[in-house]
Amino acid sequence: MIDLYTWKTPNGRKPAIALEEMHVDYVVHPVDIGRDEQFLPNFVALSPNSKIPAIVDQENNMTLFESGAILQYLADKTGRLLPTAGAARYTTLQWLNWQIGGVGPMFGQLGFFANRAKEHIPLAVNRYLTESNRLLDVLEQRLSQSAYAGSDDYSIADIAIYPWVVAAIASNRTLLGDARARRPAMDRWMTKLGERPSVIKGMNVLETPASAKS
Amino acid sequence: MIDLYTWKTPNGRKPAIALEEMHVDYVVHPVDIGRDEQFLPNFVALSPNSKIPAIVDQENNMTLFESGAILQYLADKTGRLLPTAGAARYTTLQWLNWQIGGVGPMFGQLGFFANRAKEHIPLAVNRYLTESNRLLDVLEQRLSQSAYAGSDDYSIADIAIYPWVVAAIASNRTLLGDARARRPAMDRWMTKLGERPSVIKGMNVLETPASAKS
Repeated sequence: MIDLYTWKTPNGRKPAIALEEMHVDYVVHPVDIGRDEQFLPNFVALSPNSKIPAIVDQENNMTLFESGAILQYLADKTGRLLPTAGAARYTTLQWLNWQIGGVGPMFGQLGFFANRAKEHIPLAVNRYLTESNRLLDVLEQRLSQSAYAGSDDYSIADIAIYPWVVAAIASNRTLLGDARARRPAMDRWMTKLGERPSVIKGMNVLETPASAKS
Repeated sequence: MIDLYTWKTPNGRKPAIALEEMHVDYVVHPVDIGRDEQFLPNFVALSPNSKIPAIVDQENNMTLFESGAILQYLADKTGRLLPTAGAARYTTLQWLNWQIGGVGPMFGQLGFFANRAKEHIPLAVNRYLTESNRLLDVLEQRLSQSAYAGSDDYSIADIAIYPWVVAAIASNRTLLGDARARRPAMDRWMTKLGERPSVIKGMNVLETPASAKS
């Protein structure tokens, strides 16, 4: 059993998707970053960087934060969604790292300067828009040569990248334009991932079920 | 033998330090990002994201980019500087990921808006200065509880973090103030790492030797 401390953000959805795909039992503990709950002492004790997600594995009492490390831990624990050795393992980790170090931070800065900053700063918006479009083009090129991001097999690299691409396109429709139509390989990959039941469940972690709304 | 395609930047120095520490033979191929050489077709063929560093392992002809994936590949290949299993492996990867997803991108944005942007944008400088100081505080807290970043043993997490902290402090003396004096555990760790011969050699990758200058 895994305790998952998370919120409905791209990084927060990654371990939920992975746990669903890997058929690992888990309990979700919401950490509402809109209410600054990531700074509460109980959470900081698990995640001293004050960021979601974090997990506790009840089997060995291990605590882990940083979504990239969590994905790799869960993959190694279950033997799923990351080759155990050889070139495909490191190529998959390479694309996972590409998301962690590039896509996440740069899409995140675009979201801040385009949608949340108190001033409109064209230099900053353009900087992150240019880089986000470049990263989407790199993904398109990769997916035109490989069925999935890490290799021809679905992996934790896809699980890391997908929620960020979905969120960036949804939040920046005007700026990014018709990002999918201009990138057919990425578009096919997004359709394929979006149809996976585990991806659907993980993407909806902590969303109020339709029946409970109103 | 490893072919290392790199430049004298924090990310570019990481694999050089690791290769020195691990006693792996390597040849350095400079990719001068000041001259946009990362966009030349020969390099893009190795690193489609157009970023340094990248490696080719002549033993198995494998190409890899993304410094975090390269460090993990070299550690697993040599059995050095990353525990092979257990909690310490994932805690080390957690702090490696913390550098890849947080320290690198955020220190990088501070460097851009504080030192290179064509306009002075207080909102952006303050955003990245606040986050950089917060990250340095997280590191101080970690190193006050653990001899090294990943665990009590020196690891690829230290190799990833150190060049970024050195560069951030050197480039932003006015903004970051006396960053080391205010963080004694981090200061001791920096002294300890800075004295390692392999760290000295790796940090100086592609620097002109003193004897060849003038």
